[in-house]
Amino acid sequence: MPVYMMWGANTDVGKTLVSAGLAAATKRSNRLLTFIKPVQTGFPEDSDARLVVWLTPSADSCLFGHAVTDAQLHTAVLAGLNDAADLCHQHNLPGITFVETAGGPASPAPSGSLQCDCWRPLRLPAILVGDARLGGISTSVTAYETLRARGYDVPVIVLAAGSHARPNRDAIQANVRAETDVVVLPHPLPALPATKNRTALDGALQEWLQNCAPAFDALLAQLVRRHQQRMILLGEAQAAAKKNFWWPFTQHSTVLQDSVTAIDSRCGESFAVYQSGNKSDTPAHLQMQYDACASWWTQGVSAELQPRLVSSMAYAAGRYGHVIFPENTHQPALDLAQKLLDGVGQGWAGKVFFSDNGSTAIEVAIKMAMRKYKHDRPGIIFARSPSDPGTLTQAQTACDSHPELHVIGLTNGYHGDTLGAMDAVAETPYNNDDQTPWFQSRGLFLQPPTVGLAQGQWQVSIPSEMWDFVKRHARSQMHDVQLTFPRREGVFGQRQDVQDAYAAYIASHWQQHESGRPVRIAACIMEPVLQGAGGMVMIDPAFQRAMAQHCQQHNIPVILDEIFSGIWRLGHLSAAEMLGIKPDIACYAKLLTGGMLPLSATLATNSIFEAFQHDSKLKALLHGHSYTAHAIGCSAAVTALDLYTDPTCNPNLREPDQQTPSLSLVSLWDDKLVDQLSRHARVQKLTVLGTVFAAELKTEGVSGYGATEAIQVAKDLRLRGIYARPLGNVVYLMVTPTTAQETCKKLLQELHSVL
Amino acid sequence: MPVYMMWGANTDVGKTLVSAGLAAATKRSNRLLTFIKPVQTGFPEDSDARLVVWLTPSADSCLFGHAVTDAQLHTAVLAGLNDAADLCHQHNLPGITFVETAGGPASPAPSGSLQCDCWRPLRLPAILVGDARLGGISTSVTAYETLRARGYDVPVIVLAAGSHARPNRDAIQANVRAETDVVVLPHPLPALPATKNRTALDGALQEWLQNCAPAFDALLAQLVRRHQQRMILLGEAQAAAKKNFWWPFTQHSTVLQDSVTAIDSRCGESFAVYQSGNKSDTPAHLQMQYDACASWWTQGVSAELQPRLVSSMAYAAGRYGHVIFPENTHQPALDLAQKLLDGVGQGWAGKVFFSDNGSTAIEVAIKMAMRKYKHDRPGIIFARSPSDPGTLTQAQTACDSHPELHVIGLTNGYHGDTLGAMDAVAETPYNNDDQTPWFQSRGLFLQPPTVGLAQGQWQVSIPSEMWDFVKRHARSQMHDVQLTFPRREGVFGQRQDVQDAYAAYIASHWQQHESGRPVRIAACIMEPVLQGAGGMVMIDPAFQRAMAQHCQQHNIPVILDEIFSGIWRLGHLSAAEMLGIKPDIACYAKLLTGGMLPLSATLATNSIFEAFQHDSKLKALLHGHSYTAHAIGCSAAVTALDLYTDPTCNPNLREPDQQTPSLSLVSLWDDKLVDQLSRHARVQKLTVLGTVFAAELKTEGVSGYGATEAIQVAKDLRLRGIYARPLGNVVYLMVTPTTAQETCKKLLQELHSVL
Repeated sequence: MPVYMMWGANTDVGKTLVSAGLAAATKRSNRLLTFIKPVQTGFPEDSDARLVVWLTPSADSCLFGHAVTDAQLHTAVLAGLNDAADLCHQHNLPGITFVETAGGPASPAPSGSLQCDCWRPLRLPAILVGDARLGGISTSVTAYETLRARGYDVPVIVLAAGSHARPNRDAIQANVRAETDVVVLPHPLPALPATKNRTALDGALQEWLQNCAPAFDALLAQLVRRHQQRMILLGEAQAAAKKNFWWPFTQHSTVLQDSVTAIDSRCGESFAVYQSGNKSDTPAHLQMQYDACASWWTQGVSAELQPRLVSSMAYAAGRYGHVIFPENTHQPALDLAQKLLDGVGQGWAGKVFFSDNGSTAIEVAIKMAMRKYKHDRPGIIFARSPSDPGTLTQAQTACDSHPELHVIGLTNGYHGDTLGAMDAVAETPYNNDDQTPWFQSRGLFLQPPTVGLAQGQWQVSIPSEMWDFVKRHARSQMHDVQLTFPRREGVFGQRQDVQDAYAAYIASHWQQHESGRPVRIAACIMEPVLQGAGGMVMIDPAFQRAMAQHCQQHNIPVILDEIFSGIWRLGHLSAAEMLGIKPDIACYAKLLTGGMLPLSATLATNSIFEAFQHDSKLKALLHGHSYTAHAIGCSAAVTALDLYTDPTCNPNLREPDQQTPSLSLVSLWDDKLVDQLSRHARVQKLTVLGTVFAAELKTEGVSGYGATEAIQVAKDLRLRGIYARPLGNVVYLMVTPTTAQETCKKLLQELHSVL
Repeated sequence: MPVYMMWGANTDVGKTLVSAGLAAATKRSNRLLTFIKPVQTGFPEDSDARLVVWLTPSADSCLFGHAVTDAQLHTAVLAGLNDAADLCHQHNLPGITFVETAGGPASPAPSGSLQCDCWRPLRLPAILVGDARLGGISTSVTAYETLRARGYDVPVIVLAAGSHARPNRDAIQANVRAETDVVVLPHPLPALPATKNRTALDGALQEWLQNCAPAFDALLAQLVRRHQQRMILLGEAQAAAKKNFWWPFTQHSTVLQDSVTAIDSRCGESFAVYQSGNKSDTPAHLQMQYDACASWWTQGVSAELQPRLVSSMAYAAGRYGHVIFPENTHQPALDLAQKLLDGVGQGWAGKVFFSDNGSTAIEVAIKMAMRKYKHDRPGIIFARSPSDPGTLTQAQTACDSHPELHVIGLTNGYHGDTLGAMDAVAETPYNNDDQTPWFQSRGLFLQPPTVGLAQGQWQVSIPSEMWDFVKRHARSQMHDVQLTFPRREGVFGQRQDVQDAYAAYIASHWQQHESGRPVRIAACIMEPVLQGAGGMVMIDPAFQRAMAQHCQQHNIPVILDEIFSGIWRLGHLSAAEMLGIKPDIACYAKLLTGGMLPLSATLATNSIFEAFQHDSKLKALLHGHSYTAHAIGCSAAVTALDLYTDPTCNPNLREPDQQTPSLSLVSLWDDKLVDQLSRHARVQKLTVLGTVFAAELKTEGVSGYGATEAIQVAKDLRLRGIYARPLGNVVYLMVTPTTAQETCKKLLQELHSVL
């Protein structure tokens, strides 16, 4: 059923009269009319529904005359829309619904939020009643732009007749999008009747409605047609997507057309998804789904904050678009660099290198680290990779004396899909010579001890081959080494005995790796605290501390890949802070822009930077991308970083105290439910860190990427309005740093019910 | 000197009265006032300057009362600003200037463009006189948002007193940025005097001005302070940039702080650059510079089109932000994919893979091509790169029977800075194991014949070692092979004899490369027509045709890197179209989003796509980035692609005719000047293609990247307001596809004068 929201560009533009005209046209067309006027405040003066009500007495749906929350309004309007749909179904008649707003797009709703923001979750297509008077071009166009910047479609702008109607129409039409049709009614507005008597619509109004009847009939027909077009477009989207897209990480042969998710829009943490319905019972409609995969772990803000990010990007786009960066500067890049150095980089980083995504940030980091390694060892000549397989023998000879550079990292790591980022991890099914014959795992990758919450306890699991080291090196006997903790803080506490054991383990493998071979480990690279793509696996903090300490003691640069873990994802500004590690280089992306668009930053110490200082340009870091430090992304990032830490925006901030001496997020996930889930029969273990809740399911037979248990759970969650994506045998729920705890609780409850 | 532009949120909000109040305050402060009211149209009614004029009779600068172009207005206002500055200098007094607009931000200027667009090139900070009446929150906020989306700073919103002033103030303040101060004047507006008599300001107004004097004094002081803050911020930008940024492709040790370019804003093809001036004569100011490097070859639209891109991005940001892409769809991605397949992909491409930048688009392309190669040769087992230098000998053994996969390409190529893209080119100073020890040139790279315009003739230069082949294979004798052409079309014409010779050359080298070695060429990758980073070098089309034909005859996928050459950069939708090549895979970025933000697309044939179809997910193309197909970028791209081909937006479109059977751009560069420059003593040769004009300078001694001649020319151009960047010994001018030919002519004239 077509549903439109009526907006006025200004007061006294005749919004209610246009409603009345449309109501009358609806009556003539034998459609069922529902008219909802959810807000009836004292202003503006034209917010009086009595005219329309008079015409359609059954449709009086003035829901509230007093202050209510935006959510209450949504619920009420949605109930009204449902009733309208039911009515149509009962009478087997087509319907149309109009929801009339009060005042202009930026007039406050009862809650105080702007109406354009208040109604945004419904994103109903808009009829904007423009201003046909002197000066009305500006108010009409600015109202239109404000609606558009919230993502509203505005198929029609209606102007009342008048001396300025024609010039206004032409000017407005020239400055709105082609798909917005600016329509002028053929007769000037009548004076509003002075009486409140419902039955006494005065003659002028009646006459006006009659004179304008053909125009309103045409307008109504247009609205119905535009609605149909929109639904057709959504209905065809699945097929068009299947035909034209090559999706990332997707085996297309297994994706059925019907299972393609057509996303109509996003509103904060949720998106509206097209449901084709079935012809008999449920018509096609949009359904809100909670984005529990946080759109590949990028999403940063709840609905009411989205307009702030939009506004900051629109300003940057208007002010800068993009400007070339090398040897240049602009304010958004300056502000962002300062914020990063004062934030995630505090106490260690000196320089910010911008690039476009996590993968490029990693490529840059590796180039930085390798150069630094070589710079600090001027006497050594390093081998290059054999560039010509025909001369392998010579290359091999060269290698005997000139070492090839490797990284040290963890098994199960993931740093991105460009070749340099791929080469810096151990081989996995995702990352082998079948994906690219050029792939070559270049490093020593150790299987780390991991941590999970099971049976209400945080448990450290040590890989079997590491046991010996722990036994040998731990000061206490094996049975005294604490591997189970009632609280997560215990795992993060200083556990020097275990850390020493880990260090010995690392040193031993390091030595083996280099021993008798032309190979040197030149950098450490790891995802701190939590491996994301690897299956939401929490690493024992003591192991990562041991790794970083060992490297830095040997003057090997430590790269932390904070693309997933950084910027409040784990409840702290950075995972490095949780570990107490000061890296030499670290990479940030994803949450950096609040979930809006790609931008990444590689931070480095001044000491790393100095390794590139030279007379020759050829010794500079010769890496760059066209849109490096693009102003729009930098602005989004500056705003996002502010929103995360603004107590008026983020309800989850926890002031520093002795236990957590820096700003952090409160625990988002309900303790009781977490405890229950950790004891659930189907759950192997949980990872609960900041905005991340992940449950590794017990599997029968195949585990890892081949497991199917999580697929079914994710499917069940989608039926309950939660858009989850499985990750091997892990099902996870990810929220934004600003998500209400109540929302997190509901998500856990739903997960509990489908398990 | 502080300069502010006065805007009204609506008619009758008291803009002129606020001007009058500020004028009086200026008088009291012993500053020199300049008041400019450039547009005096019939509406809106409050656009009457007589009040302010009465107060400051010398400042009557109503420039035009009739329709003029935006450019004329700018010139006039700039002249007024200069006069004001001169006056202050003469009297050795501080000054302030107000420029009053007519009507609201979106009221039309005399030219018909919206005033917010018309005045955008000046980007003067705005004083917005808000609406203190009922309904005024909405009109004030929407006016503010429209100004902000054009990149205006709005330090102050002024509201007249009235019954709604306080609630309006609070609501407006809550919905604008913190740096915007919403100020309420202490007294209600007086009624405007009815008389036009300049000397007869009526008592009510006088009284109001007197009562509000302290408020206006405070407002003036605030405006002066905000101006100073802005200049301080700009003045400190160079130092902050030098301290915090790690620029791409930059040897920082050679960048002096003073030479850092602080960019205040962009307006279409130009940006405003901060000039610190010197204390005695020239104060700090902003200077417009023409962005002749097109910000690393990204910029796509002239100034008047920038708001359209902004609007489309703001809508997408408001509607979607970003939503996860795999197995999903949203309208901007669908629209963009369709446009690409119907455009650059027409006749060959079947699928679109999105990623973030040119480099990632290339990595994806290589993965696609290599898989296709292997898929089509199921019997062969391919070697993997030796993953362990300790086992090189075994690897070598394996290689003897299992070939390693290489690409074929051209010397001097460039495809990006991630490792996979780097490995696909020949070694250059930019691309070696010093940059990353992991670099390994993996292919056969042939030095191609090139083309340049010298002495008024298009000349093909054939590398010396290719001569023999041309001699042997060309049907005619050597002296009959045409290598000089009066027109560029000649070079692009069918030159079968030369092409056959090239083909033989390619086949011979190919055979040599594979012969007796465990190496197979599995893909061709090249930049069609023009190598950008390699120095704006035009390749002989016959050579690239021979290369593509030879590869496709042997079922070797051809990748065209159209990141630079594609999307109208060379005057055609794609360079493939110019060559008449149908690639198997092609990459697009840069101009794709109109110069706004990073987004790239890798297009492939359905046959390439089919090579990834399998029961197993592990056989899918396992490559992706978090923000794949981000809606904001897709929307910008859809809009940009439309703008390029919309005759109402792009003055350079040339309808198809027999000679050029598809849409193309007219020749942008003045023929006569081009001819002159091709004969210039300092010019070796020119490349003139579409939006690109490049001059290779004659060098003494060092050539290539080490040459310094172009550096000086670029410096000289900057002094003339043209922001050029040298590229080795090449200096180039690059415009947008929509740049006026008049602008191109001026650029050439300036280049001519500095040569």
